[in-house]
Amino acid sequence: MFSKFQNHIASRFPFLGDKKLFLAVSGGLDSMVLLHLLQQLPCQIAVLHCNFQLRGLESFGDQSFIQDYCDRNNIPIFTTQFDTEAFAKDYKLSTQVAARELRYSWFYELLEEEKFDYILTAHHADDNLETFIINLTRGTGLEGLTGIPEENDRIIRPLLPFSRDKILKYAQENNIDWREDSSNASNKYLRNKIRHDLVPILKEINPNFLNALQKTQSYLRESQEMAEDASIMIYQQVAKEEGEDIHFDLNQLKKLPNYKSYLYQWLNEFGFLAWNDIYDLVDGQSGKQVFSAEFRVLKNRDTLILSPLSQRLEKEEFEIGVSDTEVNFPLKLRLCNISHITVHDNKAIFVDAEKIQFPLVLRKWNTGDIFQPFGMNGKSKKVSKLFKDEKLSLIEKEKIWILSSANQIVWVIGVRQDERFKIENTTRKILKIELHNEL
Amino acid sequence: MFSKFQNHIASRFPFLGDKKLFLAVSGGLDSMVLLHLLQQLPCQIAVLHCNFQLRGLESFGDQSFIQDYCDRNNIPIFTTQFDTEAFAKDYKLSTQVAARELRYSWFYELLEEEKFDYILTAHHADDNLETFIINLTRGTGLEGLTGIPEENDRIIRPLLPFSRDKILKYAQENNIDWREDSSNASNKYLRNKIRHDLVPILKEINPNFLNALQKTQSYLRESQEMAEDASIMIYQQVAKEEGEDIHFDLNQLKKLPNYKSYLYQWLNEFGFLAWNDIYDLVDGQSGKQVFSAEFRVLKNRDTLILSPLSQRLEKEEFEIGVSDTEVNFPLKLRLCNISHITVHDNKAIFVDAEKIQFPLVLRKWNTGDIFQPFGMNGKSKKVSKLFKDEKLSLIEKEKIWILSSANQIVWVIGVRQDERFKIENTTRKILKIELHNEL
Repeated sequence: MFSKFQNHIASRFPFLGDKKLFLAVSGGLDSMVLLHLLQQLPCQIAVLHCNFQLRGLESFGDQSFIQDYCDRNNIPIFTTQFDTEAFAKDYKLSTQVAARELRYSWFYELLEEEKFDYILTAHHADDNLETFIINLTRGTGLEGLTGIPEENDRIIRPLLPFSRDKILKYAQENNIDWREDSSNASNKYLRNKIRHDLVPILKEINPNFLNALQKTQSYLRESQEMAEDASIMIYQQVAKEEGEDIHFDLNQLKKLPNYKSYLYQWLNEFGFLAWNDIYDLVDGQSGKQVFSAEFRVLKNRDTLILSPLSQRLEKEEFEIGVSDTEVNFPLKLRLCNISHITVHDNKAIFVDAEKIQFPLVLRKWNTGDIFQPFGMNGKSKKVSKLFKDEKLSLIEKEKIWILSSANQIVWVIGVRQDERFKIENTTRKILKIELHNEL
Repeated sequence: MFSKFQNHIASRFPFLGDKKLFLAVSGGLDSMVLLHLLQQLPCQIAVLHCNFQLRGLESFGDQSFIQDYCDRNNIPIFTTQFDTEAFAKDYKLSTQVAARELRYSWFYELLEEEKFDYILTAHHADDNLETFIINLTRGTGLEGLTGIPEENDRIIRPLLPFSRDKILKYAQENNIDWREDSSNASNKYLRNKIRHDLVPILKEINPNFLNALQKTQSYLRESQEMAEDASIMIYQQVAKEEGEDIHFDLNQLKKLPNYKSYLYQWLNEFGFLAWNDIYDLVDGQSGKQVFSAEFRVLKNRDTLILSPLSQRLEKEEFEIGVSDTEVNFPLKLRLCNISHITVHDNKAIFVDAEKIQFPLVLRKWNTGDIFQPFGMNGKSKKVSKLFKDEKLSLIEKEKIWILSSANQIVWVIGVRQDERFKIENTTRKILKIELHNEL
């Protein structure tokens, strides 16, 4: 008989059945329960464990605890060790942020290497509440209040609707063993204060507080999506891409009483900090400019012009004709018509051949590129935002090429296919486009 | 020497100097401080006091306390008594909501009758925080988290940035007398719990918590405005008004992955409750319908049709020609060209004569009307939303007429002028349009 946890997983994530799943396991209560739950489902699983070396021997104790458990239960396990402190120091990050960067970049790397489909983490409703309150006490925007997502990109958090109490109860009923989790060191005092002093009062005011928060957060996410819709619609009205630059038409923009909000949305991802200076450009003298590390905004008559500081993106475009089966420069692609979809990974896409128009064009990505990422139900997203969400480094971003058909992005190569060209039930001709080793 | 409170009022609301201001005064700490502050500013003030008769003799004690204070200080005072419990029972409202409805409708009435400009209330930062937390514990949407506005419509809350502690300190330093406020009866236990148990922990985690919250709420308001922009832009793309009905083009609408959010935004103000039934209509059979008390949504082929249940809005339109100086039916208007603006109230508007096109049209308002309310910097708003915000009753709404020029609303008559036709520095010809007693 399945528990309510397993029923939730089966109904909320029915597609997991035949997938290959990594489980991020620290050895603490939550992740050991997640592991126990997944062992009883018919999925192919493997464990990922990061040793951040932040607690000396204790960290190695955790590692061997998991290693033993997996050995005894015949579960494949991947472990890695990070010098988290050194990384944090090098990149001027807090220990916590450094650990997250290291963890997720290793996760994504392994997904590719081992050809797994998803990573499951054991975040639960109380984690989500604590994060909400931490962000709230610091001052935050809508994004900081919408909560930890149940599913984003290839990360899935199946325990998110459940409280810590329910997870603990399951562990006790099933005699699950775990290591007391003393990670989150830098954050521990704050999380404990919230957990022990603040949350009990909220739950006293409303015993269903966790449910109320879930409802609130789903409304907030709806509002956030609408705000993003507005951001994209207005962008399409006032912004024009000229090569690598983006020109914002100020006469149009200034018709909006809240134009500053939009400028913030559009320019935020380019590393600007001096927001008041940027807002002042709108009514400022022609020729004035504001800089970030990699970009600048210039006021030029009735236009704001965003430009990259270096000529980091080449301007060449390469055409792929209808009879080409191979491209060798600037990167290696192979194109062939096939009858069945085979292995699906980031190195190959399958498109509906009747939806595309030749010649396809191969070019570097631009600051203003927008596409509809596969799996997002047709929502538009800026390519630069995708890179930010996927935490691509500047160097990784510089290497990215775009495949486009009639000015629509087909593939952010090696990163994400576009929804508009995907295979559907009605597809009659499938084109496979495969990336080989880069030059 | 002015206090920081008075400096804030002078810098944030510089336009109050020559205005006539009502002060809503309960007799409690906050409103007595507000009154004391305003007495020392060169504004024309009068006190409004509502006796909600919720605490027997105590309520009358508050009333005579204020009355005495105003008499001694030569401040004009208006008082009224409400049978709040009876009103709440009749309209099936909570005592708190009933008190608010009664209070604000009386306030707005007096503004008109006495030709005052604004109402000032004494809400402060801790009120705002408590409201935020109450909404949060109950589950809420973005609107419930954006906080009490410093300024909306004709209500101004000059103490909103200040904490209760600061207000108390001012009262003590200035020997201000007040009545212990035991109102908010139904809400008192909850507010006290939040005030005494929860808020101190938040302020311990971040001593500047109130400031952080103000920052958060200003970001949230930005996002909310953007979400509203999206709602209006998409509405203009998919909705078409046909007489009193609104037709929503489902083929267009369904292209949006988050179309439910938009349907909710558009239909929410029409009193629907069965949201899942409405969402099911989108893919449901032609002919299916969902009802609210006054409206229905019908699925008809590729369209959702919103219609009022009764033919409550007449369909006639009346034209006003360029040489008309008077209209006598269906309501009495007088039009004249003038050289200077005189008294400004809801019974008369002044428009730039060169911006309007004759014939002007006089008609009842429609469900889908959108205009740009005067004073909102060109933001668009649905007329129905304005009525909701101003808490107009169904009967009041039925009486409202619209004056329009070339299909643009010039005046929601007796309620709000449109921004687009207002007088500006460049105006050369002023047209005054005045409403006389309705028929």
